Amino acid sequence: MKRCFLPLFLLISTISFAQSSLIEQARNFRKANEHALLGEFMGLLSIPNIVYDTVGIQRTAAYIVKMMENRGIKTQLLNGKTKSVPPAIFGEVIVPNATKTIVFYAHYDGQPVNPNQWAEGIEPFKSVFLDASLEKGGKIIPAPKLGEKINPDWRIYGRSASDDKAGVFSILSAYEILTKLGISPSVNIKFFFEGEEEAGSTHLSEILENHKEKLKSDLWIICDGPVHQSGRKQVVFGVRGDVNMEVKVYASKRPLHSGHYGNWAPNPAMLLAKLLSSMKDDNGRVLIKGFYDDVVPFTETEKKAIAKVPSVDEQMRNELGFIQAEGGGKSLVELINLPSLNINGFSSANVGKMAANVIPVSATAALDLRLVLGNDAQRQVQKVIEHIKTQGYYVTQNESITDEERLKYPLIARVQAQKGYNAQRTKMDLPIAQNVIKAVQSSTSEEVVLMPSLGGSLPLFLFEKYLATPTITVPIANHDNNQHAENENIRIQNIWNGIETYVALMKM
Amino acid sequence: MKRCFLPLFLLISTISFAQSSLIEQARNFRKANEHALLGEFMGLLSIPNIVYDTVGIQRTAAYIVKMMENRGIKTQLLNGKTKSVPPAIFGEVIVPNATKTIVFYAHYDGQPVNPNQWAEGIEPFKSVFLDASLEKGGKIIPAPKLGEKINPDWRIYGRSASDDKAGVFSILSAYEILTKLGISPSVNIKFFFEGEEEAGSTHLSEILENHKEKLKSDLWIICDGPVHQSGRKQVVFGVRGDVNMEVKVYASKRPLHSGHYGNWAPNPAMLLAKLLSSMKDDNGRVLIKGFYDDVVPFTETEKKAIAKVPSVDEQMRNELGFIQAEGGGKSLVELINLPSLNINGFSSANVGKMAANVIPVSATAALDLRLVLGNDAQRQVQKVIEHIKTQGYYVTQNESITDEERLKYPLIARVQAQKGYNAQRTKMDLPIAQNVIKAVQSSTSEEVVLMPSLGGSLPLFLFEKYLATPTITVPIANHDNNQHAENENIRIQNIWNGIETYVALMKM
Repeated sequence: MKRCFLPLFLLISTISFAQSSLIEQARNFRKANEHALLGEFMGLLSIPNIVYDTVGIQRTAAYIVKMMENRGIKTQLLNGKTKSVPPAIFGEVIVPNATKTIVFYAHYDGQPVNPNQWAEGIEPFKSVFLDASLEKGGKIIPAPKLGEKINPDWRIYGRSASDDKAGVFSILSAYEILTKLGISPSVNIKFFFEGEEEAGSTHLSEILENHKEKLKSDLWIICDGPVHQSGRKQVVFGVRGDVNMEVKVYASKRPLHSGHYGNWAPNPAMLLAKLLSSMKDDNGRVLIKGFYDDVVPFTETEKKAIAKVPSVDEQMRNELGFIQAEGGGKSLVELINLPSLNINGFSSANVGKMAANVIPVSATAALDLRLVLGNDAQRQVQKVIEHIKTQGYYVTQNESITDEERLKYPLIARVQAQKGYNAQRTKMDLPIAQNVIKAVQSSTSEEVVLMPSLGGSLPLFLFEKYLATPTITVPIANHDNNQHAENENIRIQNIWNGIETYVALMKM
Repeated sequence: MKRCFLPLFLLISTISFAQSSLIEQARNFRKANEHALLGEFMGLLSIPNIVYDTVGIQRTAAYIVKMMENRGIKTQLLNGKTKSVPPAIFGEVIVPNATKTIVFYAHYDGQPVNPNQWAEGIEPFKSVFLDASLEKGGKIIPAPKLGEKINPDWRIYGRSASDDKAGVFSILSAYEILTKLGISPSVNIKFFFEGEEEAGSTHLSEILENHKEKLKSDLWIICDGPVHQSGRKQVVFGVRGDVNMEVKVYASKRPLHSGHYGNWAPNPAMLLAKLLSSMKDDNGRVLIKGFYDDVVPFTETEKKAIAKVPSVDEQMRNELGFIQAEGGGKSLVELINLPSLNINGFSSANVGKMAANVIPVSATAALDLRLVLGNDAQRQVQKVIEHIKTQGYYVTQNESITDEERLKYPLIARVQAQKGYNAQRTKMDLPIAQNVIKAVQSSTSEEVVLMPSLGGSLPLFLFEKYLATPTITVPIANHDNNQHAENENIRIQNIWNGIETYVALMKM
């Protein structure tokens, strides 16, 4: 047995040695060029990229095309059959003698922003440096001048700083460093930067279908999401699916004085509160009929991987400042592998200085359903709709309620659901999956966390469906990045680590 | 008995005749001067008067002072001991040989506005004419040119069009018409226009206390609120009290990605939904312990008056577009004579295009408690706080929650309550009350509705407390005026009727 191990050990060691020398070279190059690297990144962050803002999306895409051209990458904008939607940015590097082709994916669009919700002095698209996270009392500091040391614990705040311009930037920086070092990648590289991920990747399927040949590869590596909360790098083999719904309940046709009609006229905020309450018990378990049906159980390999995921529950509770989690005692890693129902937000009339003594006309909740393998997005939506009906509601999709409807039904809800998409999981024991694990492991001295599925979502099922190609996600952002919310940020060390991860993956 | 009735009948008839001749003269004057009257009113509406906007409040007060000076009324701004709060505008007209003094009250400040919630083309402080109410498909029409007939069913849209610049305007127009007609009022008249009513009249007590002598009178007549929903004029002898609260529940310190943490991290919107749900049953009955205690029952006279109030429940349900009222079958007039708990609005993160897939950090509800005779504002607030505690919450008044608190209590709510004020009721059988009823009745051919208490609130207890003077409310606005909300409006005929009512009251 010992003899059998020896050559294998040597082989790994060789790879390890080669890689760590590679990583060291990349690190040295980065250290000598940090200001230039961050300068390009700050430029990218300064361009508004809200997924629904066509002009900002076009400007962001143009900036990335320029970044790629500066690196000698031939680019092309890929469209589906639907016009006027954000294009994907494609680029290709053919490597002589390479036998495998890998597509590196990130997305350049960002979630909507409400600038009023951001901290003072921090604007979504005028990114700034802070000397620590806001939660740890971080303060805004001037951008480091040339020659000034850059503390890797500093953070950059701005929309998409982590989700997912950091992905675009780290992939392109990894490639640039290899080129500048004169090191040829070991695989053919394709770049694919999506522009509509935050709107649910509505037209991604069209783009994949339209450009099947061009996008042919052995694997898609997805750069999105955070590293493990323990701070360790992670390789993720799947994602939850996701579908958004909006539920709006109606009361009077016009807002009423809460004195003259309070106690008598129905209050839509109270109606919605009761409707939402009926959906989950006090432990956070969803009470909607059949909500947990259809779930495909984990394989043995996946179960073993999950058992090895370091527990971060207590650390996270302390960090996030609460002691009572949902789930009745189940762990975070268990719970993010179940379907979920989350209230993204709700609204009815006004609060604070704008509040007035009225009975509002309607109340609205934005819901987010996460799906696991086996769930179907529209089937899950339908379960929620059925639940709303069993609570006595007449459900319509129309925004304007007719007088006939108002005088026929005691309770009226408008429910609109997006298309959404299902969960996806790549088998952890595929040979190419093992190569990815080795490459990422070679770029760090800590044990890499192997995660069968992320709690978050990406439309990865599309790559299987339209291209029959597996996907593996290799995230880089700090876990406390406020992704999707106000005060989004990235820790600078995470950018540096991310670049090294992707250098290793391009040379795996 | 017949003989006894005869002189009384003759007397009433005489008053009626004198008054209707008065009303007729006033009406004719108004008809000849409608454009000029409305011109002055539109000018008043064009000045922002949000109670928290000091500059707007000062400009509004200056305009009203000018209106009064144009009518030959000597004015004075009355302050309490607190500086930089909206002053009350005072004016006085001494009538030779008059034995009674009446203070005519209205308020010139308005509720906050969220212009985005107003209908297209209608701005809170650029008031416009519509040819009908929005709910009945009304369209914006050009302001009537001189000589053009003004349809009394047209409406004017703008903040405070009804609440309560219409009050200020109608009182001053009634006085102006009497003067122009050369008719002397039968009572000494004092004008008192408050500037802080919509902020809960926080400093009114100081003003009353500071100017006790100046404000001496036999009666305050309050011009605020709507006529009865049946369209009939009403005389109102009391009001509910009112106190506002804000409840904010907290979860994570920072917003979380709903995929990576959904199902595990507590969701404040769901927590608040459950907390609010626990406050009322499905019939709208408040479940908070002791909520309905302390209520002083109606006198026999009041009960009789209530029995005579025309039922408008079905009419109002049809008009407002709902079939299921709160209250489990009790009538509107019964229910507005009970204490109430209304959600004025709630908010957590975002909905609609701004919604993002996050677990919000907090959720806030604005509550409005209406009080009836016997309730005490702070005692009622305390009952709500106790209820929140019994739901497992740690309750604090502080906006920022410390880490120690976060890691000690599973559920945390910040509750802030305003001072509020209690209900008030004037006895309907006072001789001066009977005079008011007669005067209002003389200005209309329909039977006047006598209402022991309005569902709405005004700080009328203060007049009893500081001046030992009764108050009677004589409202003029159309009931469907969207008071306090977006698209506030007044029907022009209600202005005309209101002026006639106040002409009669000044000559009662």
